[in-house]
Amino acid sequence: MNITIVGLGVIGGSMAKAIRENIRPENLWAVDVDFNILKEAYEDGIIDDINSDVKIYLESSDMVILCTYPKAAVDFIVSNMDNFKRNTIITDTSGIKSKIVEEVRKILRQDLEFIGGHPMAGKESSGYKYSDGRIFRGASYIITPDEYCSSENVLLLKELLFKIGFMKVVELTPPSHDKIVAYTSQLPHVIACAVISSKSFEEGKECIGGSFRDMTRVADINCQLWSELLIDNKENILTEISSLVDDLKNIHAIIENNDRYKLEELLKRSSIIRREMNYEGN
Amino acid sequence: MNITIVGLGVIGGSMAKAIRENIRPENLWAVDVDFNILKEAYEDGIIDDINSDVKIYLESSDMVILCTYPKAAVDFIVSNMDNFKRNTIITDTSGIKSKIVEEVRKILRQDLEFIGGHPMAGKESSGYKYSDGRIFRGASYIITPDEYCSSENVLLLKELLFKIGFMKVVELTPPSHDKIVAYTSQLPHVIACAVISSKSFEEGKECIGGSFRDMTRVADINCQLWSELLIDNKENILTEISSLVDDLKNIHAIIENNDRYKLEELLKRSSIIRREMNYEGN
Repeated sequence: MNITIVGLGVIGGSMAKAIRENIRPENLWAVDVDFNILKEAYEDGIIDDINSDVKIYLESSDMVILCTYPKAAVDFIVSNMDNFKRNTIITDTSGIKSKIVEEVRKILRQDLEFIGGHPMAGKESSGYKYSDGRIFRGASYIITPDEYCSSENVLLLKELLFKIGFMKVVELTPPSHDKIVAYTSQLPHVIACAVISSKSFEEGKECIGGSFRDMTRVADINCQLWSELLIDNKENILTEISSLVDDLKNIHAIIENNDRYKLEELLKRSSIIRREMNYEGN
Repeated sequence: MNITIVGLGVIGGSMAKAIRENIRPENLWAVDVDFNILKEAYEDGIIDDINSDVKIYLESSDMVILCTYPKAAVDFIVSNMDNFKRNTIITDTSGIKSKIVEEVRKILRQDLEFIGGHPMAGKESSGYKYSDGRIFRGASYIITPDEYCSSENVLLLKELLFKIGFMKVVELTPPSHDKIVAYTSQLPHVIACAVISSKSFEEGKECIGGSFRDMTRVADINCQLWSELLIDNKENILTEISSLVDDLKNIHAIIENNDRYKLEELLKRSSIIRREMNYEGN
């Protein structure tokens, strides 16, 4: 099996490292706008060649994994439409699915297979130098196969994901993915940025503990990527922000009314949900 | 030096363990409503005696560290006012300071010294069995000395805190403490509870990644303790919740208007602040 990874950033680099270690494909190739990164990965023994061009790699690849920004993933497919080998499985790793799958469906050659994907793992630091094949261990992966995907190819992709360390592969429709991820991933990033940009930060920064540190970890954000993700998933993230604002206003009212009973109930419920989340291995 | 710790929960137990290991006082005693906990700590070699009553310990203690809920700390001082040795330093560890310091000042014997304190470290699990002397290592500690505190005693307390592993001791007035902690500690807890109680949780729980896990860690909350803290610090936490709601509404508007430029600016600013926070060792 020959695999090409497009975009050797923190996700692409980690994918490449995990694949190199666990799958040992016949050939593992990569494409990146920065040739120095390719050189580094080659010298690290992660990829097998850096002397050919995209076309050569794609013509022999059985699987192409797009690890770029969402728009760039679609652009890559468009520009290379004639280069993919027949029956190649193309998958992406970007945090938005409806828009991508829709755009890809419009233009994809009928003999190619596209399966949307999204790892529930990453790092706040970006770039190949932060990549690490172990970041996927124990994590979940969402795939969004649709009626154009064959079950054999979905199985093949799932096998690869389990082999490189993912613990759980969840199949969702692209719209469900976008709705859920707005809550489980985008909202935490929005909150982290809101909290850390508060005017209270300057005065408070000498008195930070673990809860603040954990809560704001993902505020160290890739601003271009996340702007694209948030605007592409506008409807869902706006719903989640509004819903959180309502919930915060509710807590505000409870505290304002000194309603200790209601406050304890709410906190108790939260602690139970959080503890169950741990038991369920999430 | 003889030290008595009141309340062997996760903080009191961790204090006791850290003191036992790093200070080696002449005697380390503890008081707890649960005799079995005292027995456990005695068997662990952490405390020196379990056969005397509170009065005996207090009459010989140079320092008393209150590690109970806020109200219980004040109640303890009131009930034992006649038992403290002359010149004893009494300090507490609770997450609220104005109210406590004010109440203590009203009733404290003139020959005793009270210095408010609050470790910026803890655990979401409560109880002696989760205590660990190492949780303070590298953390910050806030103390709130006022005009009734002698500088020698403040220095003595600070020395002890550094010895048991704290990296930084910040001196604040009680009102400043309460204002700052509303932002750095209470707000993250409120957010974690709000996020995890969202109606989106049920659908999303299969697709959780590191950002969601970190953000909601402290939702596993001690509901009695935190209800007390939030209501005692009502004014400050309400200000912080309102301010966060405004900031979230601002982000909502930016996304709604597809204002990618403004969104990138906001996210970029957040990432810079968060990264600087790391450099500054917070």
